[in-house]
Amino acid sequence: SDVKKIAVIAGDGIGPEVVGEALKVLKKTEEVFGYRFETEHGLFGGIAIDEKGTPLPQETLELCKRADAVLLGAVGGPKWDNNPKELRPETGLLGIRKELGLFSNIRPATVFDCLKDASTLKPEVLEGTDLIVVRELTGGIYFGEKFRREGADGQEAVDTCVYNVKEVERIVRQAFDIAMTRGKRLASVDKANVLETSRLWREVVNRIAPEYPEVELEHVLVDNCAMQLLRRPSSFDVIVTENMFGDILSDEAAMLTGSIGMLSSASLGEGSFGLYEPVHGSAPDIAGQGISNPIATILSVALMFRLTFGYHDAAAAIETAVKEVLDAGHRTGDIAVDKSKAIGTTAMGDLIVAAI
Amino acid sequence: SDVKKIAVIAGDGIGPEVVGEALKVLKKTEEVFGYRFETEHGLFGGIAIDEKGTPLPQETLELCKRADAVLLGAVGGPKWDNNPKELRPETGLLGIRKELGLFSNIRPATVFDCLKDASTLKPEVLEGTDLIVVRELTGGIYFGEKFRREGADGQEAVDTCVYNVKEVERIVRQAFDIAMTRGKRLASVDKANVLETSRLWREVVNRIAPEYPEVELEHVLVDNCAMQLLRRPSSFDVIVTENMFGDILSDEAAMLTGSIGMLSSASLGEGSFGLYEPVHGSAPDIAGQGISNPIATILSVALMFRLTFGYHDAAAAIETAVKEVLDAGHRTGDIAVDKSKAIGTTAMGDLIVAAI
Ligand SMILES: CC(C)[C@H](C(=O)O)[C@@H](O)C(=O)O
Ligand SMILES: CC(C)[C@H](C(=O)O)[C@@H](O)C(=O)O
Repeated sequence: SDVKKIAVIAGDGIGPEVVGEALKVLKKTEEVFGYRFETEHGLFGGIAIDEKGTPLPQETLELCKRADAVLLGAVGGPKWDNNPKELRPETGLLGIRKELGLFSNIRPATVFDCLKDASTLKPEVLEGTDLIVVRELTGGIYFGEKFRREGADGQEAVDTCVYNVKEVERIVRQAFDIAMTRGKRLASVDKANVLETSRLWREVVNRIAPEYPEVELEHVLVDNCAMQLLRRPSSFDVIVTENMFGDILSDEAAMLTGSIGMLSSASLGEGSFGLYEPVHGSAPDIAGQGISNPIATILSVALMFRLTFGYHDAAAAIETAVKEVLDAGHRTGDIAVDKSKAIGTTAMGDLIVAAI
Repeated sequence: SDVKKIAVIAGDGIGPEVVGEALKVLKKTEEVFGYRFETEHGLFGGIAIDEKGTPLPQETLELCKRADAVLLGAVGGPKWDNNPKELRPETGLLGIRKELGLFSNIRPATVFDCLKDASTLKPEVLEGTDLIVVRELTGGIYFGEKFRREGADGQEAVDTCVYNVKEVERIVRQAFDIAMTRGKRLASVDKANVLETSRLWREVVNRIAPEYPEVELEHVLVDNCAMQLLRRPSSFDVIVTENMFGDILSDEAAMLTGSIGMLSSASLGEGSFGLYEPVHGSAPDIAGQGISNPIATILSVALMFRLTFGYHDAAAAIETAVKEVLDAGHRTGDIAVDKSKAIGTTAMGDLIVAAI
């Protein structure tokens, strides 16, 4: 009996609600497929600041390190927005990525049929869009030295963007690997006409490319990519890029699908360990009302099954259940056309559990 | 008789063609409004690399410094893409910005009625979109120290992003000033939850804001801005941001209008001096065929009249002429629905000249 340990970090805002539904789904897959999970909860983000005086308590970090995977709800909220840096939820987020070695963030930007109309893009442009952004997550300007100093013209601030060959290699290899399992097209995004880190990035990509002769590679400048995502979203398969560009482009890509409230993401390190979370935020404005949409978090469990545990049967069952419930016309408020017919968080979770 | 000196830099690809038409428009405004211009041509970009061995020859720089304004076509092309850094057109572009002190890039993202359908966004989302991106142009990661070094994990590349208080102040003031002449709404875009330069940026914005009590200010994180541009483009009036974010967001904003081939831009320094150019590139694939669209370059002349010379009558005349010619149904290939009825570069220029 192979028991998988899952660290559960509900976080702030709607985090606990949506994670609650995902846990019900987890339990149902135990019953149906015979898998066994052990879940342990940890404090993280704003609630950890309030209760422990730090966004990432040592015990939460250790809990994650002991686990096979982490399920994260959402963190942050206006309450902590003006805190000093060490007491802000996002500092915890950057910390957990670095401490757990989660160098890769994988964000599928999928169009859900029932949400096609929610996109601001024309349906014919969106048609066939199904891309993945692979974002480097523990390097670049996010983690380089940052400081203030007195310059010739008064005070100045400095951020440093650093990448070494190994950091680029591992993320690029992973992106090529993912491309091989899909449409075999890879767009590597950089700003090689300006940045030294981008020139290093491009050199590494070009050196690795011959190992994947079947993958069609294109180099796209980041400004051009921001345009092409709008002009020809369906032409992309896998996009790989550095941390800061990935932050911007993955959000742009998610938004153009119109399905942002339904998208899940994985942050991976070496080996099979991964942290899984919905793309949406903590939505403090609707927290506690029981109206949030748990689907992105439930689909994060499916992603965890696929990428960390290799439980493809259970992953498919969850994905199919979600599809069935949506096809039957059930909607939470965020995705309902007729808001008066919207169902709540728990009702949506129950329906999906029942459909598994 | 106040003769204005204009440095004309045709550049590469379709640059010379589109600039040629803009010069005809310039001449016509001399006749109609009695203004007087002295134009002098300079080599820049790829052609300067070929003929002078450097993308920004000293004599071109001096020509620009002697001038009241610069009209630029477009630079670059595949021929020079693999050159070493000092011999690449974009190195000239960065050099001319720095040397001429052009710290501000202004890009109106306007929707042309006749091109509404060219956007990939739904018409109802685009409705009312009329925004300006004010991009800092001579600071940040573009101009900070860049180098390679041996690190603990092998070779690494470093880029440095630096901003001082004065650099931020001048661009932010300019953005507030522009907002005052328009919708009085300013979105300042940064990544203050991660970057030190962004925290400095936000401090300066908040310090200056009380000087403009009529302007409604919002701080938007760059990833969120990439999304909001897609979701609610018409809600933006003026967006101000640092160099790298501005590069990405101004291209995204331009593309979503569907009118990218028609957009002009201004790069300004202290005083009234400015460099004006179309947003589109050198389009080497169609260069020399006489089919390129000169409208963005012609509108760059109108922008020059407004921002550098204060010739509002002539600027309006050019803009009205463009509108009339478009309303009459004339189109170059890039904007024609029925390509078989498309007219050439010269024909389009002649029609606009005739309409002034
Ligand atoms: C909250 C912030 C630090 C974070 C990031 O920029 O990485 C977020 O935008 C994300 O994409 O997960
Ligand atoms: C060519 C390149 C260096 C340049 C930039 O990034 O500034 C271009 O993209 C632009 O926006 O003018």
